[in-house]
Amino acid sequence: MNLDQSIKNMAKAAKGAAYRLAVVPTAQKDAALQSLAGALLEKKDFLLKENRKDLAAAQEENYSQALVDRLALSEKTIKEMAECLKATASLKDPVGEVMSTVHRPNGLVIKKVRTPFGVIGIIYESRPNVTSDCIGLCLKSGNAVILKGGKEALSSNRAIFKVLQDALKGTAVPPEAIGLIDSVDRRAVNILLEQENLVDLIVPRGGEELIRFVAEHSKIPVIKHYKGICHTYVSEHADLNMAHQICYNAKVQKPGVCNAMETMLVHRQSAGRFLPVMIAEFHKAGVEVRGCPVSQQISKNTIKAATPKDWDTEYLDLILSVKVVDSLKEAIDHINTHGSHHSDAIVTQDALEAEEFLKSVDSACLYVNASTRFTDGYQFGMGAEIGISTDKLHARGPMALEELTTYKYVVYGQGQIRQ
Amino acid sequence: MNLDQSIKNMAKAAKGAAYRLAVVPTAQKDAALQSLAGALLEKKDFLLKENRKDLAAAQEENYSQALVDRLALSEKTIKEMAECLKATASLKDPVGEVMSTVHRPNGLVIKKVRTPFGVIGIIYESRPNVTSDCIGLCLKSGNAVILKGGKEALSSNRAIFKVLQDALKGTAVPPEAIGLIDSVDRRAVNILLEQENLVDLIVPRGGEELIRFVAEHSKIPVIKHYKGICHTYVSEHADLNMAHQICYNAKVQKPGVCNAMETMLVHRQSAGRFLPVMIAEFHKAGVEVRGCPVSQQISKNTIKAATPKDWDTEYLDLILSVKVVDSLKEAIDHINTHGSHHSDAIVTQDALEAEEFLKSVDSACLYVNASTRFTDGYQFGMGAEIGISTDKLHARGPMALEELTTYKYVVYGQGQIRQ
Repeated sequence: MNLDQSIKNMAKAAKGAAYRLAVVPTAQKDAALQSLAGALLEKKDFLLKENRKDLAAAQEENYSQALVDRLALSEKTIKEMAECLKATASLKDPVGEVMSTVHRPNGLVIKKVRTPFGVIGIIYESRPNVTSDCIGLCLKSGNAVILKGGKEALSSNRAIFKVLQDALKGTAVPPEAIGLIDSVDRRAVNILLEQENLVDLIVPRGGEELIRFVAEHSKIPVIKHYKGICHTYVSEHADLNMAHQICYNAKVQKPGVCNAMETMLVHRQSAGRFLPVMIAEFHKAGVEVRGCPVSQQISKNTIKAATPKDWDTEYLDLILSVKVVDSLKEAIDHINTHGSHHSDAIVTQDALEAEEFLKSVDSACLYVNASTRFTDGYQFGMGAEIGISTDKLHARGPMALEELTTYKYVVYGQGQIRQ
Repeated sequence: MNLDQSIKNMAKAAKGAAYRLAVVPTAQKDAALQSLAGALLEKKDFLLKENRKDLAAAQEENYSQALVDRLALSEKTIKEMAECLKATASLKDPVGEVMSTVHRPNGLVIKKVRTPFGVIGIIYESRPNVTSDCIGLCLKSGNAVILKGGKEALSSNRAIFKVLQDALKGTAVPPEAIGLIDSVDRRAVNILLEQENLVDLIVPRGGEELIRFVAEHSKIPVIKHYKGICHTYVSEHADLNMAHQICYNAKVQKPGVCNAMETMLVHRQSAGRFLPVMIAEFHKAGVEVRGCPVSQQISKNTIKAATPKDWDTEYLDLILSVKVVDSLKEAIDHINTHGSHHSDAIVTQDALEAEEFLKSVDSACLYVNASTRFTDGYQFGMGAEIGISTDKLHARGPMALEELTTYKYVVYGQGQIRQ
């Protein structure tokens, strides 16, 4: 069978399974997830053996140590994957939740009810735990899922998938509700992205290049985020001690992630007292600071000059751009113009100023007196995360089970007809 | 200035205006809408004069009388446009609504707050009242809007737009928050659909061809519905009197609209008593009925044979396809396979059967014992409608003010940093 046909068949089988899965009660979905968790632990030797094939190939191809680390499974990571499935089982099932009820004068009762999307396609890179984490989240929210992982993790993904699909056979969840595209043919992603009649949603997870490719070629709706150019604005009304801690945390604690700070904006009134100490701390932590002319002057030229490109760059590294601004408005305009609408913070003791910032900055997550690093499904209390969206349609910010559902209107009548 | 640059400039101005509009209080937005309503009434002679240019051109081009009727403005329709703006002013403002609040153990308070999208593009055909109706709905929900109407209504749209933009000058809403692309160059739509950094959402309103063109060429998220192939399933547990009234209403009351019934499914146990009477009623109303072999036999060959294409056709006319099925499951499978996921109904007195239907049919609006004709923002109590979505992302079913908003998370801290 050719690749087109085999992916189409997988999507068709997933669609049929999704219709059956939509009516499986919560307790039976949870029991299935527990079975999956048990199967991972039971088959750990098989998983580790298959994972070693990927690791050997990665070494042969001279992949970076960071990539090899991301690929590697261990008893510990397999246990974590099982724990993640169990934790997902314990989360509240969003399916069937009545979001609103309207009683119309003609007697119709209209309920807005949360329902699964149907079939979700997930396209991802490297980490093999994504395979089981996403299967858990999709099944719990009543969705079938088709996975397309990276070729560097092919053997690991195949093994995890086989263990989980075999384990589904003894449960109320149809095994066809999960699918893995394990072809290394580059056309496979394109073919998946063309199944708009069978697949309801695509979630890409990976680098900006992958996500741009998916967004450009998909005929199916995509929820995504490209990058995180996150700002912290230190106002003239800031508690500067607090500002030091927040800015240090947002830049230094984990610089390689999307919710780390990339640009620090400082009001001119605060800059003289704030910047020299802050920059010294950053330098001590190994952060390269690039500043506007005013900040260079204030820091006595201990920092490099920022170029226009710096304001639009996601460093994902120990690098920071700094700009001194004259007003809240200038800070807001800078963030709306140069930011990526991901996560931005203001440090201020002035509640009115904070509200102005919250209303005017066009980002998924906005913080008053806290670090941007909190943008995360677990930190937000969602208990899980399938990704972060900087789109505005449907899901914005951290995405968990609720964001993997849509809704339908169900209308109860007693013979009503339209006049 | 060339077309590309002028559309881009309009979108840029709209984006800037959207940021300002996002913080305009409800009372000032409502006052602006009242001003717009007043301006339409005051300038009605100008509007009627400009409208006559479109009507004359339509007659010259030998457009159908139906199209000319849709184009025509009158004192009555102008009054209705003004009333629509006033009614929109009186609706609840969705912006700023707190959808949920979470208190985290670390003291962070996380609020999910409804916010405007930013800039909405609306691409539509013929009826000039859409111009003012959409301006009202977008401004009320805090969004800037760029309109692209059909060339057949060019003079009318220009006139309505000019009156409304002039009227905004005396209000708190920036006049640049509304834009009209009045070029007749066919590239104008494509250029608008490429402004993904400035326009946040596209809503096409018109025939299937227009909508497919927009969906195919847009780099901006689109909310749409292509068509309505709506079903009514008469179960073996139906009250057949009720079924007669519901099916008659769904097909005959207004056959040219998307929520009219196109296919009637009847359980074999009900067919003998139900079909002959129902078909006679349909024939009396001038409905052409096309049936499966069993329904032909039951109706003693008074109806034509349906071809496979009939099950996938939106007639928008006094034509109906009829199929006799052996089970609820067969009805559900038929609707999920051949329907357009718009509006489908079951007539049954069996509550468990009704629930199975509601859970298993994958459509935006599902009815128990009521006509599919109720799928409409006003009928659902939303007070307005900008369109109906058969998409699953963001908005499904009738779309009104709430569906023209997104949300953001605002997080209040006291210096929290991530551990």
